[in-house]
Amino acid sequence: MHILPLDDYHIHLGPISQSLPGLLAERRPSMILVLTDENTRLHCLPKVLPLLPDGAPAHGLEIPAGEAHKTLRTCEHIWAEMLRLGADRNALLLDLGGGVIGDMGGFCAATYKRGVDFIQIPTTLLAQVDASIGGKLGIDFGGLKNSVGVFRNPIAVCIDPAFLETLSPRELRSGFAEVIKHALIADAAQWDALLRGSPQAQMKDPGTILNSLKIKQSVVQADPYEKGLRKALNFGHTVGHAVEAWSLDTDAPLLHGEAVAIGMIAEARLSTQFAGLPEQDLHAICRYIAGIYSLPKLPEASFEDYLASMRNDKKNEGARINCTLLEKPGKALIDGFIPETAIVESLHFYNKLAG
Amino acid sequence: MHILPLDDYHIHLGPISQSLPGLLAERRPSMILVLTDENTRLHCLPKVLPLLPDGAPAHGLEIPAGEAHKTLRTCEHIWAEMLRLGADRNALLLDLGGGVIGDMGGFCAATYKRGVDFIQIPTTLLAQVDASIGGKLGIDFGGLKNSVGVFRNPIAVCIDPAFLETLSPRELRSGFAEVIKHALIADAAQWDALLRGSPQAQMKDPGTILNSLKIKQSVVQADPYEKGLRKALNFGHTVGHAVEAWSLDTDAPLLHGEAVAIGMIAEARLSTQFAGLPEQDLHAICRYIAGIYSLPKLPEASFEDYLASMRNDKKNEGARINCTLLEKPGKALIDGFIPETAIVESLHFYNKLAG
Repeated sequence: MHILPLDDYHIHLGPISQSLPGLLAERRPSMILVLTDENTRLHCLPKVLPLLPDGAPAHGLEIPAGEAHKTLRTCEHIWAEMLRLGADRNALLLDLGGGVIGDMGGFCAATYKRGVDFIQIPTTLLAQVDASIGGKLGIDFGGLKNSVGVFRNPIAVCIDPAFLETLSPRELRSGFAEVIKHALIADAAQWDALLRGSPQAQMKDPGTILNSLKIKQSVVQADPYEKGLRKALNFGHTVGHAVEAWSLDTDAPLLHGEAVAIGMIAEARLSTQFAGLPEQDLHAICRYIAGIYSLPKLPEASFEDYLASMRNDKKNEGARINCTLLEKPGKALIDGFIPETAIVESLHFYNKLAG
Repeated sequence: MHILPLDDYHIHLGPISQSLPGLLAERRPSMILVLTDENTRLHCLPKVLPLLPDGAPAHGLEIPAGEAHKTLRTCEHIWAEMLRLGADRNALLLDLGGGVIGDMGGFCAATYKRGVDFIQIPTTLLAQVDASIGGKLGIDFGGLKNSVGVFRNPIAVCIDPAFLETLSPRELRSGFAEVIKHALIADAAQWDALLRGSPQAQMKDPGTILNSLKIKQSVVQADPYEKGLRKALNFGHTVGHAVEAWSLDTDAPLLHGEAVAIGMIAEARLSTQFAGLPEQDLHAICRYIAGIYSLPKLPEASFEDYLASMRNDKKNEGARINCTLLEKPGKALIDGFIPETAIVESLHFYNKLAG
């Protein structure tokens, strides 16, 4: 069991059977609610149920899987169920699932009767290395991702790599994109370790996950409310978000990490032009990512859609689009403002590697 | 201008023209949104509009007056308007109105893009002496008052007694119930001053308002998250909330303070039985309250409804009904768990004074 201490809670990395029972015994909630979707109810809940104490009533809450359900309507269902079950302010919510469960379940806990305790139990690699640190909670509203939410920390995060056995290889690869990103923006040694290792093994390796968490921790603790440094985490996400959003309306929707992998290639290319990233590092990044992901060709007809979506980003200034770039592996530059022609060129660069 | 300094914001008591302009000049928001209902738009907004700086775009947001609209639906309207107007994270919301505007506007600000700044400008006596301190924000959901919300402080509270001129005598009396409550739970000297003074004059007196604010401040600062001492503020509210909620479905709905006045009589009676409040103080309390408020008889057929509603109170632990009682004027006892038969008896006691 590794314990990563943060300002006001700890991340417990290891078997859930060794972390959760102690946390619940210490907190002694009046009621335990376990939020799942249909997938985590089937694959993860059986590992958690035997760990709940006899003393407190426990109830399951289930919501449909998928970002499409990360809405106020689903929150209303969760709040109404909590009221119906008579949950008081000493109730505790376990968020057992991926990013949607963590973001939305955390938001519901943070707002139910002005806040009850919650523990995040992320079950996807993406949620384990990314969403579990930072206290960002929320839902999608008015067509905008995470436009309603709060910052609030859980009382603990329990990361059990065994849950990763329940994921498809494709979902694992998707989450691994954030591991790659963390190394590239802030930890050259971790990047070297990734280049030397086997991605398939590292995807489930507690040591790799722990290192990735530590990188995110240092970035978030330096800038908890995203005023500056934390923007480094956006590397790969300017192009990535645009490609992801577009793909959701096609018959081959991309997972978040798959889109970020594409975005990292395009933005690494921009980094050689605008941030001094050496060509040899660009090629290492491209080779490494292409070795893990099957990279789809992006139709040129869609480029204008990506640009339209990037123009809407609130981080922009005037007509130039805000990107986080790499000066070298392990060092990010925030607030690069990039002309659209260069972004289009970076998409062509990506397409030469793809397909 | 009196300035009451709290941990992370100040309450400015005096003409709004002397407080608001400086606060806005210091904060320099990217956009100013002024939330009103149809009443405060008419009666209060004209005093605020001339105080807004030229530099920032300003927009009015209007919602219908009344507790019935303190809902998630109204929040959706507010959030959607903020998105439509392009409000970013540096926008600032002015909540210009009574408790509903403050609670709901504050909640919307605290959750819009994970939180933007807001300033509370309470325009009713109730909101000025009660809601302006403590950071409790929220809406009614699932039939339960304030069941969804957060704790978050505004960047400032501006209390201008001149706004009280816009209130009806009935609304003034309603707000005054919280002034009475603050004295009873924590300040025997203020209680004596109330007994000796003229309620009609004290209702608009800045000195009385300031004293009342100071009482609430000391209670809230000692217990910001309502784990203990802060429950003292619930005196009169266990019975009061239940009676208020029931009355809203009748053709004679009570104002919040009117219901709290009823609740204080019932809970003062319980205090003589369970907390040692001297009989003579009970009678002084009853006489004083009956001299200000016209007290309606409560139909016995409604008593079971009150109990059902009290059983669902946020402050209960499990199924026991939690009351704050008085040991003597100026000293509250929290966490009295009262048998339902005694509560019914206290309602009969109240009814003998009423009508």
